[in-house]
Amino acid sequence: MGTYKAINLVKRNEGHIGPELFEMVEKTTPQPADGEFLVKQAYMSLDPAMMGWMTADTDSYIPRVELGTVMRSSGIGEVVASNHADFAVGDQVMGMFGWQEMALTDGTGVNKVDKKIPPEMALSVFALPGLTATQGLFGCGDPKAGETLVVSGAAGSVGSIVGQLAKAEGLRVIGVVGSDEKAGWIINELGFDGAVNYKIDDLGAKLDELAPDGVDVYFENTGGPIQNAVFERMNAHGRIVVCGMIADYTSAHPSPGPNWMRIIKKRLSIQGFTMPDHMHKAGELQAKLAPYVQRGEVKYRAHVLEGLESAMGGLSLFLTGDNKGKLMVRL
Amino acid sequence: MGTYKAINLVKRNEGHIGPELFEMVEKTTPQPADGEFLVKQAYMSLDPAMMGWMTADTDSYIPRVELGTVMRSSGIGEVVASNHADFAVGDQVMGMFGWQEMALTDGTGVNKVDKKIPPEMALSVFALPGLTATQGLFGCGDPKAGETLVVSGAAGSVGSIVGQLAKAEGLRVIGVVGSDEKAGWIINELGFDGAVNYKIDDLGAKLDELAPDGVDVYFENTGGPIQNAVFERMNAHGRIVVCGMIADYTSAHPSPGPNWMRIIKKRLSIQGFTMPDHMHKAGELQAKLAPYVQRGEVKYRAHVLEGLESAMGGLSLFLTGDNKGKLMVRL
Repeated sequence: MGTYKAINLVKRNEGHIGPELFEMVEKTTPQPADGEFLVKQAYMSLDPAMMGWMTADTDSYIPRVELGTVMRSSGIGEVVASNHADFAVGDQVMGMFGWQEMALTDGTGVNKVDKKIPPEMALSVFALPGLTATQGLFGCGDPKAGETLVVSGAAGSVGSIVGQLAKAEGLRVIGVVGSDEKAGWIINELGFDGAVNYKIDDLGAKLDELAPDGVDVYFENTGGPIQNAVFERMNAHGRIVVCGMIADYTSAHPSPGPNWMRIIKKRLSIQGFTMPDHMHKAGELQAKLAPYVQRGEVKYRAHVLEGLESAMGGLSLFLTGDNKGKLMVRL
Repeated sequence: MGTYKAINLVKRNEGHIGPELFEMVEKTTPQPADGEFLVKQAYMSLDPAMMGWMTADTDSYIPRVELGTVMRSSGIGEVVASNHADFAVGDQVMGMFGWQEMALTDGTGVNKVDKKIPPEMALSVFALPGLTATQGLFGCGDPKAGETLVVSGAAGSVGSIVGQLAKAEGLRVIGVVGSDEKAGWIINELGFDGAVNYKIDDLGAKLDELAPDGVDVYFENTGGPIQNAVFERMNAHGRIVVCGMIADYTSAHPSPGPNWMRIIKKRLSIQGFTMPDHMHKAGELQAKLAPYVQRGEVKYRAHVLEGLESAMGGLSLFLTGDNKGKLMVRL
């Protein structure tokens, strides 16, 4: 009976998210009881939503992670021991396995993943990011060929898929990013029509240049100054999908939103959504997404950190914008 | 061939809306040509939306009123001369007749109104206010029995009907008003469950007291500080219907809206709407509204100004909140 490593959350963040909030512990590897199985994780996913799970705020849509417990995360791995009728040793499985090398589970929320799908693709496209992009774009954004879509966090795991799906649907797609490298990637590799670098561009002028006919769909992943600039350019009957507000996850003083007059004048729809409400249709969303992937219309890049302990510093990359592609940890 | 009086818009407002923006003119009464008829107006409706029609802003959902032309308004009156096959002398008709004693029309947008319906009721309930309330509440607000609804401008022409319809549907209804007199009216006469006087109450504390389980539907007629207080109390899957922003119609520096984080956390829907998009289903909306009126569930009060010239100072009552009930001018 061996041991494995896990990382507990031990402190709430107060503005900075780094290793000081966590503690590495060593645990004894358990034996699965009846109806349980043991997963050896291969990759853990790091997602912006995790920062929300760590806060003291209890007024959220998903329970916070309690101090002294394993940090919550999704991941992919292999079943290495099983007393569960539906999961066999050798199965590739995805689930909320947390920041640990081994996870014991009764199968709740665990899905098998075809072993032909590489784990990096599974986490980048068919897990939370791809499901979020698909649900948000098609469930709330009502994209129509010929319209203009702006997506913030456009080089991120959700935004990059939103933009590619919208391109495939015939929309003009503008991405908001935080570096010229990311701007180049979404234009040259992903086929976006244009990019705004919010750190250096004059936001309004650049949007006027790239979206001269205004904006029909805004997919909001970040909040911050770009929000006002896009909002002011929304067309009549425009739709805004509010998916993430990364600029405010760690802010003590969230900045105000735009005045609502334009909501009336342009009869805008603004819809907030989070994936936990829609996880029951994960299979349906994966089926919707698969043909785009098969046609080569959805590319991804994985930003892979090495080793369990790298997770502790990894989340801060979302705040600095230094992640390049879907962030994950290889164990 | 006699003459009649009309009021032209001659100046754009810069913060204040009063008689200085208008000019009374005398016109020769025309004879209706083929396909036309002449209406002698009995009452003109004054509505908050008219302030939007007067601004220099051309980026609106309805064309602005050009300087030197008759101020736009809806009204009710009697056909006094007709060369139109569908309208006969003596018919009671409602339409966009403008600020004038007589109106020549080809019938576009003009509806006949059963002469059993008093003109004050027609303008208060079956015209713009009632249609707006019905479309906004049922088309965007998705009210469900047992839920809590907050409506701002609750003693106004739209808000008072929204609240009464919601009460009839079994919701808990809280109205936001600007005087104790209005608070008493909506509670004692209209049957609201509670009232917030935004001019004197501690908005947050009062809302916590009146809506202890939070707010499911917010019907926004005013903007201003109440917006943030209600927004912060919206429940999961709450709906916000943005119908009016009277606090900002004449403001040079509209105040910002709330930060959007709550839109995600509570998966809120925010829908802007204006009646011109829905006027094609006016008949359907009137039919939806009629049974509530017949059952005595929709009461109204008319605030009647006397004489054409009183319109020029009348709109400012919306800004001071001194109107009591549906504002209209008797000619």
